[in-house]
Amino acid sequence: MSTHEDQHTSVHSGYPTPAWRKAYRTGSRPDLRVPYREVHLTDGRTVPLYDTSGPYTDPAYAADVRRGLPALRDPWIRERGDVEEYPGREPRPEDDGRRPTAPGDGLRGLDAVFPGGPRRPLRARGGAAVTQLGYARRGVITPEMEFTALREGLAPEFVRDRVARGRAVIPVNVNHPEAEPVVIGTDFLVKINANIGNSAVTSSIEEEVEKMAWATRWGADTVMDLSTGRNIHTTREWILRNSPVPIGTVPLYQALEKAGGRAEELSWEVYRDTVIEQCEQGVDYMTVHAGVLLRYIPLTARRKTGIVSRGGSIIAAWCLAHHQENFLYEHFEELCDILRAYDVTYSLGDGLRPGSIADANDDAQLAELRTLGELGRIARGRDVQVMIEGPGHVPMHRIRENMDLQKELCDEAPFYTLGPLTTDVAPGYDHITSGIGAAMIAWWGTAMLCYVTPKEHLGLPDRDDVRTGVITYKIAAHAADLAKGHPGAQAWDDALSDARFEFRWEDQFNLALDPETARSFHDETLPSEPAKTAHFCSMCGPKFCSMKISRSINEKYGDGAAPPEYDEAAVEGMKAKSEEFAAQGNRVYLPLAD
Amino acid sequence: MSTHEDQHTSVHSGYPTPAWRKAYRTGSRPDLRVPYREVHLTDGRTVPLYDTSGPYTDPAYAADVRRGLPALRDPWIRERGDVEEYPGREPRPEDDGRRPTAPGDGLRGLDAVFPGGPRRPLRARGGAAVTQLGYARRGVITPEMEFTALREGLAPEFVRDRVARGRAVIPVNVNHPEAEPVVIGTDFLVKINANIGNSAVTSSIEEEVEKMAWATRWGADTVMDLSTGRNIHTTREWILRNSPVPIGTVPLYQALEKAGGRAEELSWEVYRDTVIEQCEQGVDYMTVHAGVLLRYIPLTARRKTGIVSRGGSIIAAWCLAHHQENFLYEHFEELCDILRAYDVTYSLGDGLRPGSIADANDDAQLAELRTLGELGRIARGRDVQVMIEGPGHVPMHRIRENMDLQKELCDEAPFYTLGPLTTDVAPGYDHITSGIGAAMIAWWGTAMLCYVTPKEHLGLPDRDDVRTGVITYKIAAHAADLAKGHPGAQAWDDALSDARFEFRWEDQFNLALDPETARSFHDETLPSEPAKTAHFCSMCGPKFCSMKISRSINEKYGDGAAPPEYDEAAVEGMKAKSEEFAAQGNRVYLPLAD
Repeated sequence: MSTHEDQHTSVHSGYPTPAWRKAYRTGSRPDLRVPYREVHLTDGRTVPLYDTSGPYTDPAYAADVRRGLPALRDPWIRERGDVEEYPGREPRPEDDGRRPTAPGDGLRGLDAVFPGGPRRPLRARGGAAVTQLGYARRGVITPEMEFTALREGLAPEFVRDRVARGRAVIPVNVNHPEAEPVVIGTDFLVKINANIGNSAVTSSIEEEVEKMAWATRWGADTVMDLSTGRNIHTTREWILRNSPVPIGTVPLYQALEKAGGRAEELSWEVYRDTVIEQCEQGVDYMTVHAGVLLRYIPLTARRKTGIVSRGGSIIAAWCLAHHQENFLYEHFEELCDILRAYDVTYSLGDGLRPGSIADANDDAQLAELRTLGELGRIARGRDVQVMIEGPGHVPMHRIRENMDLQKELCDEAPFYTLGPLTTDVAPGYDHITSGIGAAMIAWWGTAMLCYVTPKEHLGLPDRDDVRTGVITYKIAAHAADLAKGHPGAQAWDDALSDARFEFRWEDQFNLALDPETARSFHDETLPSEPAKTAHFCSMCGPKFCSMKISRSINEKYGDGAAPPEYDEAAVEGMKAKSEEFAAQGNRVYLPLAD
Repeated sequence: MSTHEDQHTSVHSGYPTPAWRKAYRTGSRPDLRVPYREVHLTDGRTVPLYDTSGPYTDPAYAADVRRGLPALRDPWIRERGDVEEYPGREPRPEDDGRRPTAPGDGLRGLDAVFPGGPRRPLRARGGAAVTQLGYARRGVITPEMEFTALREGLAPEFVRDRVARGRAVIPVNVNHPEAEPVVIGTDFLVKINANIGNSAVTSSIEEEVEKMAWATRWGADTVMDLSTGRNIHTTREWILRNSPVPIGTVPLYQALEKAGGRAEELSWEVYRDTVIEQCEQGVDYMTVHAGVLLRYIPLTARRKTGIVSRGGSIIAAWCLAHHQENFLYEHFEELCDILRAYDVTYSLGDGLRPGSIADANDDAQLAELRTLGELGRIARGRDVQVMIEGPGHVPMHRIRENMDLQKELCDEAPFYTLGPLTTDVAPGYDHITSGIGAAMIAWWGTAMLCYVTPKEHLGLPDRDDVRTGVITYKIAAHAADLAKGHPGAQAWDDALSDARFEFRWEDQFNLALDPETARSFHDETLPSEPAKTAHFCSMCGPKFCSMKISRSINEKYGDGAAPPEYDEAAVEGMKAKSEEFAAQGNRVYLPLAD
């Protein structure tokens, strides 16, 4: 159990600075407590910031990854009276990618899948629409809606309205009561997703749980578990029981494992079984590549980089092998009914997204997008929440077209994009090539951005890569919130700029997206503690501090008296002030005297 | 001299991969040899890329930083017959920030300013317009114009036309014959500048020369030496004599040193002396904050972050101390005549650029921009080349307005912007906050981007920061070249994407902006040599390789026969192909069998 002990330690490590403290806003009921991060400034003021890190960063909470997080939403779900416990599907060795007879190294007993033991899953009773979309349409403001409204500083009715229209989703499986609800839609703060997941080549359960907690600490709004290979069921169980954010998956990956890795042996039955397994575990949203139609596959033949989506290529391989229509498309309505019973949100996957600048916005991509729009209408017709996935690799001048077409073809359902990468020439820096595209597409309406780490195209991200990816995408998301004019978004920038102008270095660090990095970069050049309150930084040196000089101008002319306007009177007033200034010995130009 | 030996070694370290090799295109005369980088692929093909690294990366060149680079342009300059050698200004101890009597540690004898000894500077003879703008207006295609045309794959006459119109500049001081000419304008490849420079707090001459060479190796098109403090003249001399790219400065910084760091003791005479000193050394372009007018200063009083430009705040301090109009504005025509005699290009500085999201596009900024437009017309009227500097901190939705106003107010003179940063909340990651804005503004027309490193707002960049800043800005510039549709820009992306699709890992690394980083990231997960040719990467693992699956689709349907169209006939054809495919045992779905 030593690895679990290590894990316990790491997810319990708290915020990266003691100036960040957990706080709560309480809603209309005592158990509706919305967490946020309070940044404590040196002058005693506080700045509230959105927070995704869950109970781990609350010192009042004793974390134990072997028990999992508290079931925050359990009372909300049960008191609606429309779900029932049931025995659930029996876990099988192949859920973890094993043959019943395989001895395997380190095989866990199935009763040890999660130490808390198997739970009896919930599902809708008597065909009830237990989805947030269903409630919203019936005019009900759920605690989940109120939670997200409080989190964003908006009216609960506004959230209900946008969910009812399908313009926003709240991905909350009834079997993932640990998650803090988050609303995803173009009218809300831009969200980001971090992908984690082991693969056949590397990684372990412990590392994935740790990456999940780490990603949420830096700001990931959701996490997708893209694990393949061994222990896929067990890894997901640990992640779900310990995740304060919604968890997404691509069930096709596990289904393919069950089919022995052979795409042609996939079937609707194996897929459905996998989806039910994951619904019962509590997955909040699932990527479903139902728009990869048989007739679209030849459209990719002349592409520069063919099909780059794993899911898309698996479906394409199945379609070609059987010469049948995509079984996800053929069984889409049945799939809707399954997801509806647990309130699992669709993330309709773009299996034909472009994998290079050359392939952007081509016939294959746009044909699939049109189909995703149709599927979205079918899903919402059955009260299932829907997001639509988007590209990929797109040069800047073709990004807007993606967003506009998505709005038109998909009825303004939340768009969830990967990047897009704006050039192909910088492997090792694709968090940046894609961060550029992500900021732009989010400004134009994308609701959630799937992060890209520096290891994209090259390897699996480690802990540092996860942080770099999350911070880069928080930058893109926040830049878009500013550009969209989200109420209150700029208050954060203003607080940091005030601190910068007033030389409050500690406050600058603590208001930063990543205080640790900001502080360490500063300390490399000016390592001593007093430098953090020094009225200069190492770029300009003591004599040349522009902030200091202009601050003195600010003190002279911005002092609450009539503001100096750009007219003759002001010039006159300025002259008088300048003389007064000179009479004081021009002292503000001599920072060394400080 | 041991530090020089170290320096010698580092600037001589060659390309980051042996697959990059120096090549030349020869123009209309044998001494007009335009360097480029030839990327050698594993299949024997080559991809030509723009190269800024100078002779250092030519194995036929024996570098010696104590002698400096060869004077490439010397014959071009002299054979025009319009310049003369003259004794030049006598170097003085205060040029290096010293009092004549100060002992100082490590003081060099002035005769050792540059080991090659002082050169007799050149200047225009008899008031001739020796500027590229002057030649272009007279219909002359100079070797410099032809050089840049060959470098960009365009017609020399196109370059001449754009220079003549003031829509492009070629910053080439007659006293910096070592530099390889570069054309900067909206109709050309987007260029990037890297700032270097010691400050009173840290750094040394050797480090700055090394940073210059390092920055050009990764792609910096120009370098600005922003040194302050001691050895400012000597540092610049070493940089100029060893720089293969144009060098920019802000003469005000050195003038302030000469004024003892006291802005109010600055004068036109001290400034003019400094400009002449730098013109004689060979500085190619100079930032001049002539647009910070006395009456604009009160407009900054209510700003969130006042004046953040060092030059702007120095001028503001001088104006306030004297209550006189900016001496750079008052003496602008005289300054034009000085720059004209050496072909030094103006970079009209935006001393009132916004330093925070809150201050973007405010009255102070836009008033100054209008004045810069007026000054640009005066300068071009005297045959002096002009760039206009731009912000700063601007949220995405206000970036376009900056570009459009600049075009309107400044007659489409090349715009040279710092970022802009699209949010203030990420110190430690401002290469990314600004890379987003830089890509966008460059797409919309900005000609050159001044890089921002991760240390922005926090400290001085080290070697790694310089590389990160340069690569980030090369990404922004290239993304903009793609979006602008620069002829040939996409060929690079296509070559890399082909390599990716064909699993040519070595070629992917070697076509990357930063091969070292791409290779090392890949090797962290799959370190063995054979992995670089393995048909899978660590993200998907052996079974799940989407590239592999879709490549097989490509082989089936993209085989030179009639392309499958999106119609019934194609579906039929596809069916036949699929059956043929199945008859082969579905082998492409079994990558493990390979």
